[in-house]
Amino acid sequence: MRVGFVQFEPIFGEKDRNVRRSIELMEGLEADLWVLPELCNTGYLFRSKEEVEDLAEEIPNGPSVQAWREMARERNTHVVAGMAERADGKVFNAAVLVRPSGAVNVYRKAHLFDEEKRWFEPGDTGFEVVDIGDARIGMMVCFDWIFPEATRILALKGADLICHPANLVLPYCPDAMVTRCIENRVFAITCNRIGVERRGGSTLTFIGSSQIVDPKGQVLVRADRDEACVRLVEIDPTLARDKRITERNALFEDRRVALYGALTEG
Amino acid sequence: MRVGFVQFEPIFGEKDRNVRRSIELMEGLEADLWVLPELCNTGYLFRSKEEVEDLAEEIPNGPSVQAWREMARERNTHVVAGMAERADGKVFNAAVLVRPSGAVNVYRKAHLFDEEKRWFEPGDTGFEVVDIGDARIGMMVCFDWIFPEATRILALKGADLICHPANLVLPYCPDAMVTRCIENRVFAITCNRIGVERRGGSTLTFIGSSQIVDPKGQVLVRADRDEACVRLVEIDPTLARDKRITERNALFEDRRVALYGALTEG
Repeated sequence: MRVGFVQFEPIFGEKDRNVRRSIELMEGLEADLWVLPELCNTGYLFRSKEEVEDLAEEIPNGPSVQAWREMARERNTHVVAGMAERADGKVFNAAVLVRPSGAVNVYRKAHLFDEEKRWFEPGDTGFEVVDIGDARIGMMVCFDWIFPEATRILALKGADLICHPANLVLPYCPDAMVTRCIENRVFAITCNRIGVERRGGSTLTFIGSSQIVDPKGQVLVRADRDEACVRLVEIDPTLARDKRITERNALFEDRRVALYGALTEG
Repeated sequence: MRVGFVQFEPIFGEKDRNVRRSIELMEGLEADLWVLPELCNTGYLFRSKEEVEDLAEEIPNGPSVQAWREMARERNTHVVAGMAERADGKVFNAAVLVRPSGAVNVYRKAHLFDEEKRWFEPGDTGFEVVDIGDARIGMMVCFDWIFPEATRILALKGADLICHPANLVLPYCPDAMVTRCIENRVFAITCNRIGVERRGGSTLTFIGSSQIVDPKGQVLVRADRDEACVRLVEIDPTLARDKRITERNALFEDRRVALYGALTEG
């Protein structure tokens, strides 16, 4: 199975251009699954609720999903992309999985970072695993990384591969995702954006460093901090299904669930 | 508050010597809390159940705890040490906290690694936090590191500082403990042993690399792989009580407990 990421620089508000740019970067490359950054159609630094509502789209009827869908169908591939979703009068920081069949799945970011709380509703989808034939994938978005619960639940539900669109500005996540892979024996693709966004007196510099990590914590590929690029690797997602780490230890069987009550209290 | 670790090489079965050696290494140094390695009085590579039972001691009446207790009282300090505990006809891979008052607390390792399952009962104490005046500490032992649940529960229960005796042979734990500190905003002292143990055809090489990490994931000190040494740092444990990471984010308030049910199922 060939999987990859598309690290690029969305320009704020230029949705058509950003989606076109993402598709352009994938052109001529064969892959079974692509992961794109968080909010990669809209950009990140919203200044008002109206602006978010205006840029958000319905899934699957909005133009961004339609464009990725056309590409997924033509190229027989899957795309996981971060985008602003409008649904039932609310706006979510979402990741959409677009399949070659045209079917889509949505994950709505559970853990919102900083000003995102002004613009988005907290995600209500929970953490669900989707079977795409060659692999079982789980989606999470950016700041979800710092909560071990997110990856853990996806892995417990059978995810082989975590698809993780991001807009990282702090330096901690790439190494922490290595720990996430080791503690859960899963693959993870973190796709971050690059570039600097300046709006309304705020400036954010994104750290790039998109990466693909294997279930033993090996970084199979890590991108530069500031280069628009795609990277592809060949993986065997079924390697993530073997949770044995010694003759007598299997990561999930060894969990002492009876001692874990405090995790879901309060 | 001055805290430190004692990285050294226990000799298998030589309990008196090992405990004396640990005390000798702390001599002349002022600290409020010391962390010693896992099974630091007995050594690690047991070959029979009888051997384990013979070397295990009751807490607090066995000679190892008595020796550390005397030292803790004389020097007005706390010691967390890994040892084999005999209790109610069972043997546990335990960590004991010895206080200057003579009072002790015990943690029994929840997640046993490989052959430890032949020698020890799975821990039945759960993850509890102990107030030692200057700090609230939580104990976990070695392989517990790979289960994010262990550190998480200690942090949720208010631990400022994780005391983590270890006998590490694989290379992953030191970096993973950095993630543990970041995701929980806690301090952690991992004290590993050094040296090579050869018994009954088995050989283990321990990786040293004991370390102290702060709540932002900074490695305050990390020891060499093979040097017997003590390291001390001055910390303010109350820094671990501030879980805010942005104006709008606090690590524990942001947990989406209603979405976490899968963590305690099955």
